[in-house]
Amino acid sequence: MTSNNEPLDILKELASTIRKRKTMDPESSYVAQLHKKGLNKMLEKVGEEATEVIIAAKDASDSNTDSLISEMADLWFHSMIVLSHFNLSHEEILTELEKRFGLSGIEEKASRSER
Amino acid sequence: MTSNNEPLDILKELASTIRKRKTMDPESSYVAQLHKKGLNKMLEKVGEEATEVIIAAKDASDSNTDSLISEMADLWFHSMIVLSHFNLSHEEILTELEKRFGLSGIEEKASRSER
Amino acid sequence: MTSNNEPLDILKELASTIRKRKTMDPESSYVAQLHKKGLNKMLEKVGEEATEVIIAAKDASDSNTDSLISEMADLWFHSMIVLSHFNLSHEEILTELEKRFGLSGIEEKASRSER
Amino acid sequence: MTSNNEPLDILKELASTIRKRKTMDPESSYVAQLHKKGLNKMLEKVGEEATEVIIAAKDASDSNTDSLISEMADLWFHSMIVLSHFNLSHEEILTELEKRFGLSGIEEKASRSER
Repeated sequence: MTSNNEPLDILKELASTIRKRKTMDPESSYVAQLHKKGLNKMLEKVGEEATEVIIAAKDASDSNTDSLISEMADLWFHSMIVLSHFNLSHEEILTELEKRFGLSGIEEKASRSER
Repeated sequence: MTSNNEPLDILKELASTIRKRKTMDPESSYVAQLHKKGLNKMLEKVGEEATEVIIAAKDASDSNTDSLISEMADLWFHSMIVLSHFNLSHEEILTELEKRFGLSGIEEKASRSER
Repeated sequence: MTSNNEPLDILKELASTIRKRKTMDPESSYVAQLHKKGLNKMLEKVGEEATEVIIAAKDASDSNTDSLISEMADLWFHSMIVLSHFNLSHEEILTELEKRFGLSGIEEKASRSER
Repeated sequence: MTSNNEPLDILKELASTIRKRKTMDPESSYVAQLHKKGLNKMLEKVGEEATEVIIAAKDASDSNTDSLISEMADLWFHSMIVLSHFNLSHEEILTELEKRFGLSGIEEKASRSER
């Protein structure tokens, strides 16, 4: 799934794929279709997929999480479509999460300051 | 978990943070609090944050996306809490997205090896 | 729309219609179809319609409420389908609202005690 | 608004209560508070309550529907708050449902006139 040297950055690949497909023929790409239909359609999908995540989580157990994983992937995918509508990507979200959770705490910051 | 050469893998850091806080004193950690309250409370948060993403997206413009970014970060964060409830993480979701969008397909790998 | 003597009780009529269609051939009735597909499908519809209400409300103005009215009707209709799954109807919801909001306050209660 | 002969029209009472409380002191009325906070807050509540309906329905059984009834009442109540924001009420929704389901069709009226 990944090369020998570094893990594939899947969100980055996905963002790049979405960016490329955004302006393709809607007949040949679901992403292009959503962009043609516009923001409301994208947001409906976010609401639908969030609902399906909730239902799948209620039906899941530790040994039965396939449907939850599938619905969560749908939710994140459609989240990224919404971001792409505003020319944003997962990067802005990750930066926000990093700031908020202090993910690069003191030790980590120290090591980074040495770069 | 990070090196001087690669960007911080923020979702990985966040997943690790959530895992550590899961069993902490609920008084001192929001993550522990949600785990104590249980799955329904986590799912309520997913529904709430999805709603707030939708509203923020309707209010956003290309030059005003702060609220959308903030709500999307909340949605992803609470998604990761739900995953942690089932001892899953973002990794299962990224693997699913990878499979689904053929992000690491044979052709794609080939083209990357030429870079 | 109503008879000369009393207004048509539309929720009552709708509940009765849903009850009758519940066991019909799914080919001929959307209500029967939803009942055949089961609770999860009904709940997905509630999530979808709530999302569409939110989007329609964001797009509405005092002079442009058609879409909001239409989506709200969808939300209430699918709410009633969920209730019918549990052999409940709007009546239990109205009774709950009555209790909660004291809609039949002191004066009204007084007059009712005279019946 | 009610008489000794007819059942209390609860949605009508509730709509009237909401209309009266809309302009009250926000300190003394939850309805006034929501109106002061504005449409986004009302819509957040619709999203929250729809989520709670879904979760409660997943946890409900034929003999345990208290929580579902309570959450559905919350959803309908907040729906009516959103309608009141646009100077609409349940009446427009019922009229829409009536049109859509042909609840007052010619045959139906005929049969009622024979009662």
